[in-house]
Amino acid sequence: MGNSFGKLFKLSTFGESHGKAIGGIIDGCPAGLQLDIKAIQKELNRRKPGQSAIVTQRKEPDTVEFLSGIFEGATTGTPIGFLIKNTNQKSKDYSAIKDTFRPSHADFTYTKKYGIRDYRGGGRSSARETANWIVAGAIAKQLLSEMKINAYTSSVGDIFLEKPYQELNFNLIESNVVRCPDESYAKKMIAKIKEIKKQGDTIGGTITCVIQNVPIGLGEPVFDKLHARLGMAMLSINAVKGFEYGSGFCGAKMKGSTHNDAFNTDGTTKTNLSGGIQGGISNGMDIYFRVAFKPVATLLQKYNTIDNHGNLVTMQGKGRHDPCVVPRAVPIVEALAAMVLADFYLLQKSNKL
Amino acid sequence: MGNSFGKLFKLSTFGESHGKAIGGIIDGCPAGLQLDIKAIQKELNRRKPGQSAIVTQRKEPDTVEFLSGIFEGATTGTPIGFLIKNTNQKSKDYSAIKDTFRPSHADFTYTKKYGIRDYRGGGRSSARETANWIVAGAIAKQLLSEMKINAYTSSVGDIFLEKPYQELNFNLIESNVVRCPDESYAKKMIAKIKEIKKQGDTIGGTITCVIQNVPIGLGEPVFDKLHARLGMAMLSINAVKGFEYGSGFCGAKMKGSTHNDAFNTDGTTKTNLSGGIQGGISNGMDIYFRVAFKPVATLLQKYNTIDNHGNLVTMQGKGRHDPCVVPRAVPIVEALAAMVLADFYLLQKSNKL
Amino acid sequence: MGNSFGKLFKLSTFGESHGKAIGGIIDGCPAGLQLDIKAIQKELNRRKPGQSAIVTQRKEPDTVEFLSGIFEGATTGTPIGFLIKNTNQKSKDYSAIKDTFRPSHADFTYTKKYGIRDYRGGGRSSARETANWIVAGAIAKQLLSEMKINAYTSSVGDIFLEKPYQELNFNLIESNVVRCPDESYAKKMIAKIKEIKKQGDTIGGTITCVIQNVPIGLGEPVFDKLHARLGMAMLSINAVKGFEYGSGFCGAKMKGSTHNDAFNTDGTTKTNLSGGIQGGISNGMDIYFRVAFKPVATLLQKYNTIDNHGNLVTMQGKGRHDPCVVPRAVPIVEALAAMVLADFYLLQKSNKL
Amino acid sequence: MGNSFGKLFKLSTFGESHGKAIGGIIDGCPAGLQLDIKAIQKELNRRKPGQSAIVTQRKEPDTVEFLSGIFEGATTGTPIGFLIKNTNQKSKDYSAIKDTFRPSHADFTYTKKYGIRDYRGGGRSSARETANWIVAGAIAKQLLSEMKINAYTSSVGDIFLEKPYQELNFNLIESNVVRCPDESYAKKMIAKIKEIKKQGDTIGGTITCVIQNVPIGLGEPVFDKLHARLGMAMLSINAVKGFEYGSGFCGAKMKGSTHNDAFNTDGTTKTNLSGGIQGGISNGMDIYFRVAFKPVATLLQKYNTIDNHGNLVTMQGKGRHDPCVVPRAVPIVEALAAMVLADFYLLQKSNKL
Repeated sequence: MGNSFGKLFKLSTFGESHGKAIGGIIDGCPAGLQLDIKAIQKELNRRKPGQSAIVTQRKEPDTVEFLSGIFEGATTGTPIGFLIKNTNQKSKDYSAIKDTFRPSHADFTYTKKYGIRDYRGGGRSSARETANWIVAGAIAKQLLSEMKINAYTSSVGDIFLEKPYQELNFNLIESNVVRCPDESYAKKMIAKIKEIKKQGDTIGGTITCVIQNVPIGLGEPVFDKLHARLGMAMLSINAVKGFEYGSGFCGAKMKGSTHNDAFNTDGTTKTNLSGGIQGGISNGMDIYFRVAFKPVATLLQKYNTIDNHGNLVTMQGKGRHDPCVVPRAVPIVEALAAMVLADFYLLQKSNKL
Repeated sequence: MGNSFGKLFKLSTFGESHGKAIGGIIDGCPAGLQLDIKAIQKELNRRKPGQSAIVTQRKEPDTVEFLSGIFEGATTGTPIGFLIKNTNQKSKDYSAIKDTFRPSHADFTYTKKYGIRDYRGGGRSSARETANWIVAGAIAKQLLSEMKINAYTSSVGDIFLEKPYQELNFNLIESNVVRCPDESYAKKMIAKIKEIKKQGDTIGGTITCVIQNVPIGLGEPVFDKLHARLGMAMLSINAVKGFEYGSGFCGAKMKGSTHNDAFNTDGTTKTNLSGGIQGGISNGMDIYFRVAFKPVATLLQKYNTIDNHGNLVTMQGKGRHDPCVVPRAVPIVEALAAMVLADFYLLQKSNKL
Repeated sequence: MGNSFGKLFKLSTFGESHGKAIGGIIDGCPAGLQLDIKAIQKELNRRKPGQSAIVTQRKEPDTVEFLSGIFEGATTGTPIGFLIKNTNQKSKDYSAIKDTFRPSHADFTYTKKYGIRDYRGGGRSSARETANWIVAGAIAKQLLSEMKINAYTSSVGDIFLEKPYQELNFNLIESNVVRCPDESYAKKMIAKIKEIKKQGDTIGGTITCVIQNVPIGLGEPVFDKLHARLGMAMLSINAVKGFEYGSGFCGAKMKGSTHNDAFNTDGTTKTNLSGGIQGGISNGMDIYFRVAFKPVATLLQKYNTIDNHGNLVTMQGKGRHDPCVVPRAVPIVEALAAMVLADFYLLQKSNKL
Repeated sequence: MGNSFGKLFKLSTFGESHGKAIGGIIDGCPAGLQLDIKAIQKELNRRKPGQSAIVTQRKEPDTVEFLSGIFEGATTGTPIGFLIKNTNQKSKDYSAIKDTFRPSHADFTYTKKYGIRDYRGGGRSSARETANWIVAGAIAKQLLSEMKINAYTSSVGDIFLEKPYQELNFNLIESNVVRCPDESYAKKMIAKIKEIKKQGDTIGGTITCVIQNVPIGLGEPVFDKLHARLGMAMLSINAVKGFEYGSGFCGAKMKGSTHNDAFNTDGTTKTNLSGGIQGGISNGMDIYFRVAFKPVATLLQKYNTIDNHGNLVTMQGKGRHDPCVVPRAVPIVEALAAMVLADFYLLQKSNKL
């Protein structure tokens, strides 16, 4: 049942990595929004495979096709149906992997949960699904055009961009293939990924996201706090293992006298360890959070694993896979953040008389 | 709108810290569950104020009163209504704080969002609400009696319990007031909190939670992944700034060849960096996660802040507050984990023919 | 699970007829609504037992007690918790009915569904639950103060008020105990009910509801059409067997050339067989619908039935029951209509830019 | 937002009558169901235009194409995405109707609600959408293969099939184009529709639906009663004005002593005025209900109406429209009934321990 996201701005999706198509329905986008379709495709291109030397070399155009809900360039208030065809399906022989469970993939859990599994690639558990999220997120961004949502790669392995976001120029995020807005760190990260790739190995990393110009009042406590929904959204992304916002895990080491954000007389705060959210509601300061990605599980190495019957088998990873998921995940983080904000933006319209 | 939690095992709550009562409705608890009411009250007692020298000295019995849904000791399948009366209400003079926004509290955001705020204490944003969650969590625990859910304090400030959970004896969690299952670390943590309290200051910390004997197959990808719902639940708790499961933020520094969990022939895994969840679905291994709490915002110190009209005012923190929220949050973490698992346990019943 | 109603203006309820209390939580009522508590109690009094000679003589004050969400007379945007205590509980001996299934009651189905049943009275299936709905509906009415919602008794048995609603004076609805706004029909209906009561029998009837001053645009096709949600709401009321709006079942006999509502140049229509709703969305004309109630199942007669083990048993209906449910159901119809409209009123705020 | 139906067996849809395609996502269908795709297409063929002389002569194949969630012939537990392409789109000139509001259509309300409307045909308000429902309903039927769901035309205009359903042979429903299981009445109905068609007029009618072999216990009181959800579903169908189940509106004229259904010792009842549902829960007896359809609003006649600016305009109805919606609505009624039952069938799995 868990294939819908959001309450008023709501995305429902379908699709397996090697089926005919993936796609979705966006329900609740307000009528009258002039859509920039090229901007949507541009976001998809930021996520698509084959875009640079440090990501998977698989080629898929990932072209979105809209089927409803848009008329003469604008949203009509009716559901927006869309498709992204899977052009890279191969009628290849899957018999080798059919009954095999790859380590740290979802093969085992899907098979046990459902008693059946689409064994051609990752099926539903593939990150290919996130292309759907990009589409909805790109529309959400256009709905929230006043807000600025910028994500960037803040670490790869043990290379950490050690600068607060205030010192970064977000315009540089797209200037390099790893999507790190600091050229010198970007170079180190790219070198790291290339080295790891050569080993047939993979590496984890983190993404930081900053949201600016957020109106005061978004978030619905006590169970739909703004940061709780952002966290849930980020933890939905394949390979994510952690989420922190504002002071995050560092905040757990601090004293209250250092951590509290004193007010200025205009209602802004002198510091922002709260991360732009207090009591689950945006306070108008920048929202920022960090997301941890584990290394991709598919290695281009020989490995042992088991099959359906509990037999040990030796497999050889091959194909075209990402050595590091982080560069392509940057637009996904932004897309989900935009969807969460769009939902709260609409929910907040009925909060008071 | 955000005052309901869960899909099939669903809690809806109400109540302000200084109103007549808080309470809730649990809808969807299966019929025929023999309830141990004393065990529910016992969980509430683990959370209640005044239980030890290192928590707030406020005295409230926090007695739960059930109003429906239970007949002759068992659940009937109809909604379970319950109340916890606020016995500690004082008809005191709130005029001093009425128009004042305490730093890093929700006073400012509630007022801006709703245009009105119950200024007697924290109102709806008070952690008093979590007593409601304990009630529902305690019932969820009884529904899931085969699973073992244990949370404990794993750090206070910079004192970290540096032992993997496998080396700990969970029976010792309740043996000390800080709820750390290692006596020597517990002593250090308690001393730390006492020292901080003497300063009129507060301190953050982390809680680790381990869930054992989880059946394979819980979790509903792609938007209701088990860890995403656990993360959302934990981020709903007052003062939480971060969540990580399995390898967490450490995993983001690792290589795939180290991070992958190789299978044993029985379907268990040799390591468990996945944290018991793969593709958003439980794989039968232990689930474990860590939650970061910021220091409590209320300090027993003098501080500057602003009022409703943007005037600078000087306030003096007083009253009976927690110097560290972590010891009392341990049962809250367990309660929310139990509710999430109960919901997926019920949802999973319709997954396959 | 089915104990919540509405999406944005949402009521969740609990309670059995002979438990300690019934009650509910209203989530999503906008902040800043000045509540007239007396008006809420007045609506409850319209529904309560013992108010006239033609309804049950059971005496219950049905006093609502608010526990949260209201501060200094106004809603705060946080959930409104409320209770109605059951004062008429008797520690009587239920052993006779404990294992018996009354015909056309829910005793049999509740027992079979849940495996257990609160056999003291109707338990959860009792119409006592509708007192909760009155509370939420009375608040919804205050939110929608510009709309006029009037329900009235339009038939009792075969006595039909044969006048279109436009010829009636809604101010007369409360002028007689059967709630029929035509004095001469009211007399006949009251006489009918008294006659039926004398026989120890019961009788069915219908209620018509008219909603005026509805803004254009309420309703969310294709699955939350305004009339579909009204219909679902009405069919939730105990004893309801049918719902029709606008031309209703009569419309099914008509030709399109007679049925179509021609426009005036101001967008109103010359006729209103559509019943104020086109395509599931209000068009600004009066909404009107009719609800059919079966006769109450509890007779003050001797009857045969079965027990839990399939044995035939003879029972004697006794106690204080309604000979006709319709007079007391009038405020319930209005309350549910108000809740449906309040929900759509809030949902509609995010429909367009 | 209102484009999803169901809680566990959930359909979300999109599509306008003259867009590229309509389609949907079925989320929550249990894994392991062997699907008979031909049977699904067969249901679509029962609804499709052009199938007989008494329905619209528009030709559309209405071929369903599945995109996901089915693997090697069986459902996988992941969402089932599907498309039905609109092959009958014409690049015709819509300028004449662009700003015109047809009487008793949704042109006016959609324009007022959303500020914009896809004016090519009915857009989202077109009954073309119901083809999506047929797909989901056909899958629900396969899930509920033990239950028998039969709908049939029970009246056209003033021609009423005056036989209780027990005297009918449901195998005859498909033996004639009006879908009435009594040949002599069918002839009269067909003649009536042909006569009406010749006049350029349209006519209303009713459909009766009977559901047999329903397990005891389906339905979730108090707000998701089985008949309330059935009613809501039926009222979602274009042109429906009324719904009644069991004794329905007739029951409102009856006395309790006649209306009550006495038990047999095996838990069945001697009569079934309850219509197979008591307290909102199925009791194992046949469920039956009746649905009223108004006459189609599109007439092949000249008529007066208004445009966007409030000018009176004269229009001429033309094209290929249904003179009576009822014959093609028979499979739609069945489809929605099947979806409601499938949802409750899954929900009921978690009702008791």
